[in-house]
Amino acid sequence: MPCGGQGRCGRCAVIVQDGTGVRRRSTLRLTSDDLDAGYALACQTVVEGDAVVTIPPQEKIERRLVTDKTATQVTLPFIYDPVQHQPMHLVPVELDPPDMVDQTDDWSRLKRAVATTSDVSDLTADLPTLRRLGTVLREHNWGATAVVEMDTWDRPNGSHRLVDLLPPGSTDHLWGAAVDIGTTTVSLYLVDLLTGEIAAKAAEYNGQIKRGEDVISRIIYASSRSSRNSDGLGELGSLVVGTINELLERAARRAKISSSEVYKMTVAGNSTMIHLFLGLPPSSIRLEPFVTAINHPPPVRAGELGVNVHPQASVDCLPGVASYVGADISAGVIGSRMCDSSALTLFLDVGTNGEMVLGDCDWLISCACSAGPAFEGAGVRDGMRATVGAIEEVWVNSETYEPTYRVIPNPKLEARGDPTPPRGLCGSGLISLLSEMFITGVIDKGGHPNFDLGSPHIRQGEHGPEYVIAWGDQTEHGRDIVITKVDIDNLVRAKAAIYAGFTVLAQSVGVDLSMVERVLVGGSFGQYINVEKAVQIGLLPDLPWERFIFLGNTALQGALLAVLNREYRQQVSEAAQLMTYLELSADNTFYDAFTSALFLPHTDLTQFPSVAEVLADREGQSVT
Amino acid sequence: MPCGGQGRCGRCAVIVQDGTGVRRRSTLRLTSDDLDAGYALACQTVVEGDAVVTIPPQEKIERRLVTDKTATQVTLPFIYDPVQHQPMHLVPVELDPPDMVDQTDDWSRLKRAVATTSDVSDLTADLPTLRRLGTVLREHNWGATAVVEMDTWDRPNGSHRLVDLLPPGSTDHLWGAAVDIGTTTVSLYLVDLLTGEIAAKAAEYNGQIKRGEDVISRIIYASSRSSRNSDGLGELGSLVVGTINELLERAARRAKISSSEVYKMTVAGNSTMIHLFLGLPPSSIRLEPFVTAINHPPPVRAGELGVNVHPQASVDCLPGVASYVGADISAGVIGSRMCDSSALTLFLDVGTNGEMVLGDCDWLISCACSAGPAFEGAGVRDGMRATVGAIEEVWVNSETYEPTYRVIPNPKLEARGDPTPPRGLCGSGLISLLSEMFITGVIDKGGHPNFDLGSPHIRQGEHGPEYVIAWGDQTEHGRDIVITKVDIDNLVRAKAAIYAGFTVLAQSVGVDLSMVERVLVGGSFGQYINVEKAVQIGLLPDLPWERFIFLGNTALQGALLAVLNREYRQQVSEAAQLMTYLELSADNTFYDAFTSALFLPHTDLTQFPSVAEVLADREGQSVT
Repeated sequence: MPCGGQGRCGRCAVIVQDGTGVRRRSTLRLTSDDLDAGYALACQTVVEGDAVVTIPPQEKIERRLVTDKTATQVTLPFIYDPVQHQPMHLVPVELDPPDMVDQTDDWSRLKRAVATTSDVSDLTADLPTLRRLGTVLREHNWGATAVVEMDTWDRPNGSHRLVDLLPPGSTDHLWGAAVDIGTTTVSLYLVDLLTGEIAAKAAEYNGQIKRGEDVISRIIYASSRSSRNSDGLGELGSLVVGTINELLERAARRAKISSSEVYKMTVAGNSTMIHLFLGLPPSSIRLEPFVTAINHPPPVRAGELGVNVHPQASVDCLPGVASYVGADISAGVIGSRMCDSSALTLFLDVGTNGEMVLGDCDWLISCACSAGPAFEGAGVRDGMRATVGAIEEVWVNSETYEPTYRVIPNPKLEARGDPTPPRGLCGSGLISLLSEMFITGVIDKGGHPNFDLGSPHIRQGEHGPEYVIAWGDQTEHGRDIVITKVDIDNLVRAKAAIYAGFTVLAQSVGVDLSMVERVLVGGSFGQYINVEKAVQIGLLPDLPWERFIFLGNTALQGALLAVLNREYRQQVSEAAQLMTYLELSADNTFYDAFTSALFLPHTDLTQFPSVAEVLADREGQSVT
Repeated sequence: MPCGGQGRCGRCAVIVQDGTGVRRRSTLRLTSDDLDAGYALACQTVVEGDAVVTIPPQEKIERRLVTDKTATQVTLPFIYDPVQHQPMHLVPVELDPPDMVDQTDDWSRLKRAVATTSDVSDLTADLPTLRRLGTVLREHNWGATAVVEMDTWDRPNGSHRLVDLLPPGSTDHLWGAAVDIGTTTVSLYLVDLLTGEIAAKAAEYNGQIKRGEDVISRIIYASSRSSRNSDGLGELGSLVVGTINELLERAARRAKISSSEVYKMTVAGNSTMIHLFLGLPPSSIRLEPFVTAINHPPPVRAGELGVNVHPQASVDCLPGVASYVGADISAGVIGSRMCDSSALTLFLDVGTNGEMVLGDCDWLISCACSAGPAFEGAGVRDGMRATVGAIEEVWVNSETYEPTYRVIPNPKLEARGDPTPPRGLCGSGLISLLSEMFITGVIDKGGHPNFDLGSPHIRQGEHGPEYVIAWGDQTEHGRDIVITKVDIDNLVRAKAAIYAGFTVLAQSVGVDLSMVERVLVGGSFGQYINVEKAVQIGLLPDLPWERFIFLGNTALQGALLAVLNREYRQQVSEAAQLMTYLELSADNTFYDAFTSALFLPHTDLTQFPSVAEVLADREGQSVT
């Protein structure tokens, strides 16, 4: 849950159907109606006797959907060449057996054979690998296949390490994994390092979610010590490793291999996720002056972390830049192929935070805006994740102010030809709703609903003005789905933070946003939004639509490129080194830009010429 | 026990005083007298009911004595200079605290501070160290003391690694340990790396002894799999690590520190000991063509091995040369300071095997002779280790042929002024006995006792001719202490093997043994033998006595020099690389030299001019 069990977010509400011994400690986030209906915040409620509790369906995790939604097709930006690009080599070797004349030790003999067959003359090995050598060599009559790591991300021309010694002829496959640890979702590609082909992909909610939905809650959980939570850091580490292992098992099953055949793994993720994964204390990330323990972690052996690939496999966490511009963003820079061109590019990854990078790869400047999770549906009364029952697009009739909407369908109902009743609004639904309300005049540039329009959808609710998107007789839970003025203000603050980020980045290097030649949008969020509507609310800059490219999970793409290609490993390392980080919380320019953006689309309409045009058209229509 | 429980050595004989349900499976090594006296081989006996068993005292381990006997004073061959020599640096650092302008991550900030204070600009660290950084830095107001490893033996100008981060002001001590893993005894120095001073030393029987007394028995135990012994290799590894941990604890207690403050450890030992310590399968060492898994193991973290120094401390096993010329011998080359001079030097380490190195350090040639454990008292009827009750020197009266002897005293008896009754003969006792018998004519050059002398000490025993050194009424166990013709043959074979080794080494490089300028003798064996007598039996070459230097445990000395001084780390690595290994089991020259040496002192008396002189004198006396 977003607040990590502190009674603040109200997302763990359950219905106590029968329970004499249930004591509510806090009902802060519940209305009197809610209480009458039996609602209680699970995290704030003590069960002191028998109770019957119903969990409302809204937050049930729809695993299938998450997996499928991230299943984008992958096209590599290069023709994969196992010799030029591959991070590892399979080196078939035939050793001269030792005899009384040549008593060279097994390890030196193997190194000699590898140097003869390949150009690797400075092979190293870990002790567990050395322990297995003699048995493998003798069982297979001095023939073998050496699995050699050619480099790691931090040493592009670096170490040559024998990771494993396989029986002779084991030259069909060489497996790698690319992982993105998202705060919400962990995604994984299983890839054949000999062909560059993706054999399987898998995604799953990050197992840490039960200890807090956002990075701040997780950091607090990792840092606090109590009787209930004696090693929060260790627990969060185990949870995410558990998720990764589940994904590995699932992907390996689909590819009909064992996950222990995976010999290299790259990991992207924000700085908090990387810290928790590696067991690095994250508390300084949260506290001013917001520094990480380490931005560029060294490669670690999988066995040390408990990741169920080959125990001697390198786990290369990609380098981050700062506390809030992590390896997900450096990975995104390569994953979005931002640096494959010298065009002035804005790269944007919107999630709970909005992280963005501006530059032409001779220079790169980045920042992070605390947009809050509004566009993920949190902090919005009827907000929800983009799962079954979420309204994902809304249209408002400009004459009747009646909404129509599209719901992410339930496949079972869809198969029967039945519509899926809505349960709430996901991020793309909220953006299109906000835009439609603004353009049709349901709300003004300050977000205030216009009661003068006389629509029954615009009404005064318990928490102030609100607009009804769906009446209770159409919804799954029987309640009206609404957006309140409070919700609108939250969304406007979120979009203002992001837009202010663009503004400050551009100002800091003296370019105008209109000069941006490409806007590369990463993150699952970006995949489903409508550019026109996002521009109309002032979330994205007003540029020709063809300059926007939506790329899905660019962090995962970056991890994939890094596991496959040493040039991209070098590029991610260089990008992280090169990137300047602007700390916005210490920046007055940002605050000014933020307050200027707290309107729809902006106080300065000249920055949004296309929106001005639409508004002028509407004005004209109203007049005629 | 020497044979590792295979019923071959007879060393586990116990007396069954009362036991109806005791079944002897093999009595191969027991005489009918033994059986009458109730003896049984413990390893070959099944207890099927109640039994009362007495363990004869001969093999009881006398811990105190071993510890004391190895407590030689150490003089370093250089004036210790912590800046020039020390393998590790303590770097005091004061970091600029992070602020909103400088948000550099903790690790980069620390690296920057270390680079400013010292010349180390390429610091690395293991993940567990990185996990602790932030806490240490913040707890001590951004002051700290960095413990930096400057190199490891295999990378003399190599890696700079942060091993630990201590509170500021922790600059008094920096601890290292040097270890020699002997097949019988493990020895350890605890040394202050800031001053070069030895704070404590400790020695203990290798805990593996209960699984076999020599390397061959240990290899068999490590390689076999049975229900009783499912992981012999792991068990032997744990046993020696347990012994090392006991020594560390003992030494740390004496120095009033914690063993976790030890930051670097060097380890010498024969190839089998190093393999077992590191968990490397040793079976190929024993089987033709006798190769090791690895001669130069990489440095390993202590935590990975379970050694109770600092878990991130490097454990550097010194490099070996071949299966039977291991790291104990390369360590011995530096420990004996063989290469501090360019004199033609013979280095010799006699234990179960006799290992030897000849050279002037522009070249080095080595070999190992399977001398067998006769000089350690095994394979000899009344042989025993050099502990309380062992006869360590013998004189034979050249007219009466009566022996007199000196016994390693029991301190309790000694304190009361009582003599210690003998229990057997240790190595130095056997050498002096053999020499005295030969020089006085009790035995001839073929080792045959001369019954014509009419001495009651020369008699026909159950196993053939024998000489009585002590009558039963003087001995602890009440039995006569004798040396049989079979024992003499065993000893002659052992000394012949060693002498043949010298011969072959010298021949292979075309030098004469008389040209050897120094004979450096390592091993605890060498410390107690009498050169004159060792030459008289043909065990050592006939050189002026002042050329012999007895150095004690040269392997431990070498490990000490290596932990203290990077020049010696470099030297041991170069010596191991440089050293040519002669495999004697494939060498006909060796067989010829061996058979020529199967006489006292040798078939070719011209090689032993001083012995020829003594014999001529005796001849003269007999004649007069």
